[in-house]
Amino acid sequence: MAAAAAAAGTEEVPNRRVILKRHVTGFPAEDDMEVVAGAARLAVPPGSAAVVLKNLYLSCDPYMRGRMSKHDRPSYVPDFVPGEVLAGHGVSKVVASGHPDFKVGDHVWGITGWEEYTLIPNPGSLSKINHPEMPLSYYTGALGMPGLSAYAGFYDVAKPKKGDYVFVSAAAGAVGQIVGQLAKFTGCYVVGSAGSDEKVNLLKTKFGFDEAFNYKKEQDLNAALQRYFPEGIDIYFENVGGTMLEAVLLNMRVHGRITVCGMISQYNLEQPEGVRNLLSLITKRVRMEGFLVSDYLGEYHRFEEEMVSYLKDAKIAYVEDVAEGLENAPAALIGLFAGRNVGKQLVAVTRE
Amino acid sequence: MAAAAAAAGTEEVPNRRVILKRHVTGFPAEDDMEVVAGAARLAVPPGSAAVVLKNLYLSCDPYMRGRMSKHDRPSYVPDFVPGEVLAGHGVSKVVASGHPDFKVGDHVWGITGWEEYTLIPNPGSLSKINHPEMPLSYYTGALGMPGLSAYAGFYDVAKPKKGDYVFVSAAAGAVGQIVGQLAKFTGCYVVGSAGSDEKVNLLKTKFGFDEAFNYKKEQDLNAALQRYFPEGIDIYFENVGGTMLEAVLLNMRVHGRITVCGMISQYNLEQPEGVRNLLSLITKRVRMEGFLVSDYLGEYHRFEEEMVSYLKDAKIAYVEDVAEGLENAPAALIGLFAGRNVGKQLVAVTRE
Repeated sequence: MAAAAAAAGTEEVPNRRVILKRHVTGFPAEDDMEVVAGAARLAVPPGSAAVVLKNLYLSCDPYMRGRMSKHDRPSYVPDFVPGEVLAGHGVSKVVASGHPDFKVGDHVWGITGWEEYTLIPNPGSLSKINHPEMPLSYYTGALGMPGLSAYAGFYDVAKPKKGDYVFVSAAAGAVGQIVGQLAKFTGCYVVGSAGSDEKVNLLKTKFGFDEAFNYKKEQDLNAALQRYFPEGIDIYFENVGGTMLEAVLLNMRVHGRITVCGMISQYNLEQPEGVRNLLSLITKRVRMEGFLVSDYLGEYHRFEEEMVSYLKDAKIAYVEDVAEGLENAPAALIGLFAGRNVGKQLVAVTRE
Repeated sequence: MAAAAAAAGTEEVPNRRVILKRHVTGFPAEDDMEVVAGAARLAVPPGSAAVVLKNLYLSCDPYMRGRMSKHDRPSYVPDFVPGEVLAGHGVSKVVASGHPDFKVGDHVWGITGWEEYTLIPNPGSLSKINHPEMPLSYYTGALGMPGLSAYAGFYDVAKPKKGDYVFVSAAAGAVGQIVGQLAKFTGCYVVGSAGSDEKVNLLKTKFGFDEAFNYKKEQDLNAALQRYFPEGIDIYFENVGGTMLEAVLLNMRVHGRITVCGMISQYNLEQPEGVRNLLSLITKRVRMEGFLVSDYLGEYHRFEEEMVSYLKDAKIAYVEDVAEGLENAPAALIGLFAGRNVGKQLVAVTRE
């Protein structure tokens, strides 16, 4: 009986999971989450098109902070529910499938649970990994949602031209490092900001930024930007918001573009900061435009092929910061907001 | 001798003018300007391509407030100089010309002095009025810079579609009243805000807005916008900035557009207000874009023909608020910032 149940995948296996303990206000703490024991069945309900995933890598993304709060109005992603498992992008292996497009052993990326095994009732949102010869963890970053964000936000939203002056904030992060390198391909002059000298060094030596600075060491962000952009900024790739955006607005060039990808400085504030200097939008005829990567999923496969070839040819360098084990996932996630990560932050649940 | 001098236009005539007495901080007062006596020669320097204009109508425009302050960095228009005459858009008649494109008796509009007669050394920036059968004062408004601002800002920047939900602030002003009517042509649902019940009534009865409200009577602008736009706002035509923009950001629809034409609520503040809720740019994928009408002068003649036909066919209604005489020009200008004007504010220097 035991053997038959195992063969059918109907026995239960341990399934540790990260749950939200309570809705968060202000800065999240490790204690707002908890790693708890659970159980999973490695089988799909009979007749369903579900899949069961074994989660390998989980992506820590700043936007997840928004889901940890309780909102009065629905946002573009639902709030996490206290007592329930967190969810986010991840790289997983299919261990059971009732879906014709996914077979056991396939590697996929997409939204999954922060746990060892996840049942996905509707796998339509999962993408099959077409290049399993690449480091699979890259599908949480350069080859996944952050990479596509960089690609779509830079090319489609910012519409760069050769010779443009480009500024990238949070430039050593998952998205920023890719944006800077795409900008160099385009023939732009690129400056990045980051929050430590180690990251600044990485930007200049590894990612090929023309210049970089540690914003924490600048008394006056406006003066810093004037120093690095005496002619002004054509493209600002916005990842942080707040006072950096205020300073950037004073330094935009005529017909400049601000691609709004994220505003990590604002996510833990109960009341967001007000941004002054928006009058520059008129005087400099600036276009400021937000985007969500989910609008660009139709371009994913073209992007994947292009990015794979860049990575294989070492034309794009990529740095990730890997936390080992689900028990370290809460610390890894909140570390994003203190800037503790160097490069793309992710969690290795298991190395298979 | 006197007759000969008069025939050659070399004698001097009285020329009252409005000068800036001092650079302004905060709210401008009538006393920051002064109407002084002066003299003009109704002749151009021999051999020059200059023209002498007799000014008929002067346009009072909110952007002029910026020129009354002293700026550390050059803006897109130079600061006014204390002791010197103010300048702005106006409608004038050519009374002397050394320029082949302009002959005595022509009517023109463009940048001129706030005075009775102005020597324009380089008349290249003046536009000949092709429809002198229209009320000439309209060339300070519906047929001039504000009209072209409405046209370019709405069609080219906001890129409207039939069925869009459109919100216009300062909707009874020179630009707003035209934007609302263009939006109705396009098949949009249009709501305007203004600062008095009289203006709200005008919006609904004369300009054909679907709804309008007095923002001064609303405790909570967010709640007001939710009431008028239960489905959200596709296009916001921004004329005021500050708390209205904050509230609008919470009510934008996915892929909405904010055309930033002006921010009159901010012009008299020593420190502009910070605007919160910019995260909505991301979650709703909003494009917020500023523009200057000066980038669209190449489209003026196409616009002029279209707007003349709308006005002749009474398809567009147009309301102006005329101050009589140069001595009332300072009060008319500062009245803009108290919202005293109903419709386009201008000054009639002379009715010829």
